[in-house]
Amino acid sequence: MTVVEGSRIVTAPGWTGKARTDLALIDCDVHQGYKKVDDLFPYLPRVYRERVIDQGLLIPSSGYFNNPKRAARTDLVGCDANMADRDGRNRGTDYEGLKGAHLDVWNVDRVLLTGSGANGASVIPDPDYGAAFCRAFNDYTMEHWAAKDERFMVAISVNVRDPQRAVEEIHRLGDHPQVKAIMLPTGAIMPYGNRFYHPIWEACEQHGLVVGIHPGAEGSGMAGPPTGVGYPTYYIETRMARPQMAMAHAVSFIAEGVFEKFPKLKVLFDECDQFWAVGLMWHMDADWKSLREQTPWVKRLPSEYFVDHIKVGSQPMLEPENEEQFFMMLDAMHADRTLVYCSDWPHWDWDDPATTFPKLPERLHKRVFADNARELFAL
Amino acid sequence: MTVVEGSRIVTAPGWTGKARTDLALIDCDVHQGYKKVDDLFPYLPRVYRERVIDQGLLIPSSGYFNNPKRAARTDLVGCDANMADRDGRNRGTDYEGLKGAHLDVWNVDRVLLTGSGANGASVIPDPDYGAAFCRAFNDYTMEHWAAKDERFMVAISVNVRDPQRAVEEIHRLGDHPQVKAIMLPTGAIMPYGNRFYHPIWEACEQHGLVVGIHPGAEGSGMAGPPTGVGYPTYYIETRMARPQMAMAHAVSFIAEGVFEKFPKLKVLFDECDQFWAVGLMWHMDADWKSLREQTPWVKRLPSEYFVDHIKVGSQPMLEPENEEQFFMMLDAMHADRTLVYCSDWPHWDWDDPATTFPKLPERLHKRVFADNARELFAL
Repeated sequence: MTVVEGSRIVTAPGWTGKARTDLALIDCDVHQGYKKVDDLFPYLPRVYRERVIDQGLLIPSSGYFNNPKRAARTDLVGCDANMADRDGRNRGTDYEGLKGAHLDVWNVDRVLLTGSGANGASVIPDPDYGAAFCRAFNDYTMEHWAAKDERFMVAISVNVRDPQRAVEEIHRLGDHPQVKAIMLPTGAIMPYGNRFYHPIWEACEQHGLVVGIHPGAEGSGMAGPPTGVGYPTYYIETRMARPQMAMAHAVSFIAEGVFEKFPKLKVLFDECDQFWAVGLMWHMDADWKSLREQTPWVKRLPSEYFVDHIKVGSQPMLEPENEEQFFMMLDAMHADRTLVYCSDWPHWDWDDPATTFPKLPERLHKRVFADNARELFAL
Repeated sequence: MTVVEGSRIVTAPGWTGKARTDLALIDCDVHQGYKKVDDLFPYLPRVYRERVIDQGLLIPSSGYFNNPKRAARTDLVGCDANMADRDGRNRGTDYEGLKGAHLDVWNVDRVLLTGSGANGASVIPDPDYGAAFCRAFNDYTMEHWAAKDERFMVAISVNVRDPQRAVEEIHRLGDHPQVKAIMLPTGAIMPYGNRFYHPIWEACEQHGLVVGIHPGAEGSGMAGPPTGVGYPTYYIETRMARPQMAMAHAVSFIAEGVFEKFPKLKVLFDECDQFWAVGLMWHMDADWKSLREQTPWVKRLPSEYFVDHIKVGSQPMLEPENEEQFFMMLDAMHADRTLVYCSDWPHWDWDDPATTFPKLPERLHKRVFADNARELFAL
């Protein structure tokens, strides 16, 4: 595919007019949306279209109140970038808003479109409707987003609770040059290392797709409680549960030998914060030394699988008490190999690329803002 | 109560023969046991005694294989310190073994007895049997352990799923000078900040008892899955789930305003590792700044509640890649106020006080090995 860079604002002197040959800024979490549920109707089978018109989408989202204005950036309220469906839920952003206020401002080279609301399709009872909703959302995204801008990479939604349907969707779209990942909810009835899911990982490896995991349906529908001690009460607790769920999935991928079975598989945790990775690697390495006879298919230190196969999104970037702690944590999590920049556009807690970190050393900056993601998506 | 120090081995020159007036070593996690189930019969009502003889205890423990030799230290296999009940499960240790091979060797000044197997009483269906089992186990402990050595502090077991029975047990034993805590399982159907539990916290505050939380029944009985994404497959995963559960409970205590409602309440997390506390405090402080209008009873930074009210046990102590990281982590978790030494005697992954840490600075050493626990238990 010929890469056409988007229009660019020249923000500093020294611009030579030559085409850039490098990727400098890759954003691994942008939420594309549709303007209204009806936009999906051309892509939905008639049976579901009629049910949705009659009874609504029934795709669950969180049962917890988010911040006001549908969780969007307050400066985007009232414009198309703060779109909501007929249930009043935020459905991400529109293309022009994203392009004008994010992509072109920061000269973003590539964007992973991670969806809005489609995670819930994995936690509804009817697996065929879940798969049909994913197909419709994916088709809408390919036509109304991917086709408009070659900077877009798409993480297609699949119904992870039905591996057969998920594999079909991966085969249907997985060879499109802009499809680079699948997108799954953090909330699940079984951790993602479980052999139940292995056909999905096999299909991802075959098409070179990253396994993207993002909050959005935890604790709702059939996902089960979002912590290991049941349902919390408040939204802030569900945010704090995200690293817990990421830990459980990461441990499961490693302990079940998924990365031995599928050695090219890569996993991306978006919006689950970051520094859980540190204690997890230290603890699991120590435990593996004592317990590895129980999982002989885990042949290397767990931290080696982590660093080789797992990436962690930068948003919301944790804020240590001082910079010394911050840089030590980046070092301890091997951020030069594991951390990728994410904006989480257009949500209220988004991070722009200029202020999300203290100034990073040049090599680390390049790894986090571009090279780790470039390697992840084989760009 | 007059404190009688246990017999001491003189291990270094300079001993003056004067009585020590200070507490230098407090161990906040030692598992006392009973030799066989029949030992509990004198303390169990006849109805349960007969059922247990007929059908077994039915107190669930983990459904995951632990290390061989019933999870005990291999050097203790074959002696009374590796006791098992009629189901072959490890039930902790005996007094002489503990005294000879741990207390007297290391000159331990105080020990928190945290029980063995009694956590399962909180996750069985019948709440009255659960409460009766806790009573029996507590009575056995008071008679066969606490009465033998004034170094012992007891964390009494209560059935946390039945607050009324739990409160009764706290009132029954809470004023005994050696009873210093209650002991709860990490596994739970609701996080411990939930108002369902508040009568228990009220009783603990009234008697000055610490709320001790320890792995042991997670994922078994009625506890529900031990991660926010369901049941993992292998034992190593359940070990990695402990910090996740501790995080969920700690967040819940803070978000539900428990420490505003019960300002003298203290919580101790044993055997859930340590450095989860760091990311949790950083993340929750940042989120609270954005979301505090949803929980107006949380009046201070979440990390302030954490440092003032929560202690974290040192075993199994995480092992960073280098000492610089280790000390930065201790600093970031405010170990001088939050970390307490635990041995986890007599289990295979126990930590002795001499080698569990690199050499700590003198003040921090004193805080971790004695002063934090002294303040926690008001000694």
